[in-house]
Amino acid sequence: MKPTLQTLKGFRDFLPSEKRKRDFVLKKVVEVFEKFGFEPLQTPMLEYADLILDKYGEEADKLVYSFTDRGGRKVALPYDQTVPTARVLAQYKNELPKYFRRYQIQSVFRADKPQKGRYREFTQCDIDIFGSTSPLSDAEIIACTYFTFKNLGFPNIIIKINDRKTLIKTASPLSNKDLSTRSIIRILDKRDKIGEKGIANELANQGLIEGAIKKILKNIKESKKSKILEQIAENAISLGVPEKILQFDPTLARGLDYYTGMIFEVIIPEYKVGSFGGGGRYDKLIGQLSGQDVPAVGVAFGFDRMVEAAEKLNLIPQETNQAKALISVFDKATQKQSLKIAAKLRQANITTEVYPAQEPLDKQLKYADKKGIPFVVIIGPDEAKANKVTLKDLKSGKQETLRLDQAISQLKD
Amino acid sequence: MKPTLQTLKGFRDFLPSEKRKRDFVLKKVVEVFEKFGFEPLQTPMLEYADLILDKYGEEADKLVYSFTDRGGRKVALPYDQTVPTARVLAQYKNELPKYFRRYQIQSVFRADKPQKGRYREFTQCDIDIFGSTSPLSDAEIIACTYFTFKNLGFPNIIIKINDRKTLIKTASPLSNKDLSTRSIIRILDKRDKIGEKGIANELANQGLIEGAIKKILKNIKESKKSKILEQIAENAISLGVPEKILQFDPTLARGLDYYTGMIFEVIIPEYKVGSFGGGGRYDKLIGQLSGQDVPAVGVAFGFDRMVEAAEKLNLIPQETNQAKALISVFDKATQKQSLKIAAKLRQANITTEVYPAQEPLDKQLKYADKKGIPFVVIIGPDEAKANKVTLKDLKSGKQETLRLDQAISQLKD
Repeated sequence: MKPTLQTLKGFRDFLPSEKRKRDFVLKKVVEVFEKFGFEPLQTPMLEYADLILDKYGEEADKLVYSFTDRGGRKVALPYDQTVPTARVLAQYKNELPKYFRRYQIQSVFRADKPQKGRYREFTQCDIDIFGSTSPLSDAEIIACTYFTFKNLGFPNIIIKINDRKTLIKTASPLSNKDLSTRSIIRILDKRDKIGEKGIANELANQGLIEGAIKKILKNIKESKKSKILEQIAENAISLGVPEKILQFDPTLARGLDYYTGMIFEVIIPEYKVGSFGGGGRYDKLIGQLSGQDVPAVGVAFGFDRMVEAAEKLNLIPQETNQAKALISVFDKATQKQSLKIAAKLRQANITTEVYPAQEPLDKQLKYADKKGIPFVVIIGPDEAKANKVTLKDLKSGKQETLRLDQAISQLKD
Repeated sequence: MKPTLQTLKGFRDFLPSEKRKRDFVLKKVVEVFEKFGFEPLQTPMLEYADLILDKYGEEADKLVYSFTDRGGRKVALPYDQTVPTARVLAQYKNELPKYFRRYQIQSVFRADKPQKGRYREFTQCDIDIFGSTSPLSDAEIIACTYFTFKNLGFPNIIIKINDRKTLIKTASPLSNKDLSTRSIIRILDKRDKIGEKGIANELANQGLIEGAIKKILKNIKESKKSKILEQIAENAISLGVPEKILQFDPTLARGLDYYTGMIFEVIIPEYKVGSFGGGGRYDKLIGQLSGQDVPAVGVAFGFDRMVEAAEKLNLIPQETNQAKALISVFDKATQKQSLKIAAKLRQANITTEVYPAQEPLDKQLKYADKKGIPFVVIIGPDEAKANKVTLKDLKSGKQETLRLDQAISQLKD
């Protein structure tokens, strides 16, 4: 019986053209993370299941890939990178710096039904500063986020910020035993999608009377940046974030309940398919997970969405790392010369592929064209004799017989 | 109950210092792969189990991490990269180039008991050329292997080569119903470890008479490179592989039975902890896995061992991508200036960390020192007023008050 020759639903292969785009985005992202002094961390693709399940409670069963291994251990694929990092903070307590700034870019997994644009395996891209309660670290996270998107070339970047405490102050006086503060916040968070009227409707559906609704809407309008948020914004601006892109949004809630202070979200106006990632301060979570209190602030980027948007806005150069030259193989007699020239091009840092068969030249040209290799280097008997090469530009169709050094400088252009 | 705050046995975290070393080796490896026109491929961390299990038969149960997911599907973590790639070759038959040269660097998994230096999750690093039977592609694989190790800076590289067909010719006339050709080959493969005498003993233990043993040893001594091996070696030399490092070894067998022609192995004389990887031609395997015949030649590197050896031989620069400067934070009044200077250093491509707390300067210096950050930038009231910075070199202990541009050019050295 033949095995199943396809990927599992919700899982993806990245063929070279797609993988190159991802590698390009990855490189740009890592460049900025490292410039900001974030350090790379890698954790395993398998953890003790109780660690992963602990955080997510009853929902976890549906969301986490967990199973029993041959040794009878309950194990799980990571659901996010925060939980394995919480384990790292506890496990290597004495080895890690007092303020640990790490980045982590790995696969995480969701066992629930995949939907359009949502996968069972996807890449998460996190930066966090652990150990500091200072607004300086909130500002570093925001600045690093801004420069990451800037380094990718996005022309417009908006960062919405809010303070979860402000939000709680707005919502909690109007909560009651039937309608929790958390539920009100969840409704307010939809403002971008449903507008003020939509919020009023939903609150009314939840049984809130008109006066209370008006009060909430008024509170929102009159909300001011908290003092800590002002400090964070000021620091971020000093770190180079343009003032106008930092937008205070008193209804921003960022779903996850574990945030304890500043929260933020990145918006690319030209690609409004949800958020590109967001984050904030979460001073309690690490303690809950590991028993060791560690204040934290960070952000998680949706790597797939960044790649999609960068592609849509033409920020990814064509043919990144694609072979620049195909060395054609003419016949047995000239083959040696062809290979020596391949070696010389590579020595000159030109990405070079050798055609791995002796076939008619037109086949070799077709192959290069189909693969998007821009130049073919032809060494026939005449070229071999004259110690030259013919360089064919597949785009223009032009070809020229040149000395090798001339060909190299053309290829380097 | 607290969750289990440790890694599973056989799984590893890579903390920043270790991860940086791996990233350095990775970069060097990928540089060469791409220069040779190999294209990146990424496959999922979960596959249909029958695909993974099919190849390894009865042993598979013990070796492969497989389980049943919530949808009742039998799934497995990848055991190697060859099998997922065989699936890719079948699944995207019409999209892939006629000659597919791909590299793949991902985690693979082994469910058996971990041993010293052997892990349950480890990084495999493969290059392969699919679709070509020409010795040109064998030579490309060997040349790319050589230049990969050269690019890492290994002073001595040896590549042992053999032709599996030669080996079979040596062994098969002496096999019998009690001693298969394969078993004889396995014994011959141990020559490096047990010597000729050891081989003779083992063959005798297997019931081979003295005359037969003598014949085998004589055959080995008189073995010559097959014609195809000569062509491959000649091509590899034209591609820049030094002749002397290509060593014909008529007893090299490379374990895996799926090789059908040339086989080879990399040896680093200064770090003789087994092989750094090896490969060869396997023209039947892809057809067996996917039902679609595709000739193939490739190599798999043991990434962990490469990192270990590179470290042992001091080929990995200290403090790769480590922050170059810590911006200290003196007080509220000067903080803004500190952040602005951080932004300027980063703009000048200097890896810069901002100390995320207002603490006494000596604490900040200690932090930088412990983390291996070589310079601390101090902006106190005097510096802020004079629009200067004090640059402290933690290694020498010297400090100097400079204009920012002066400090930047010192940091860039």
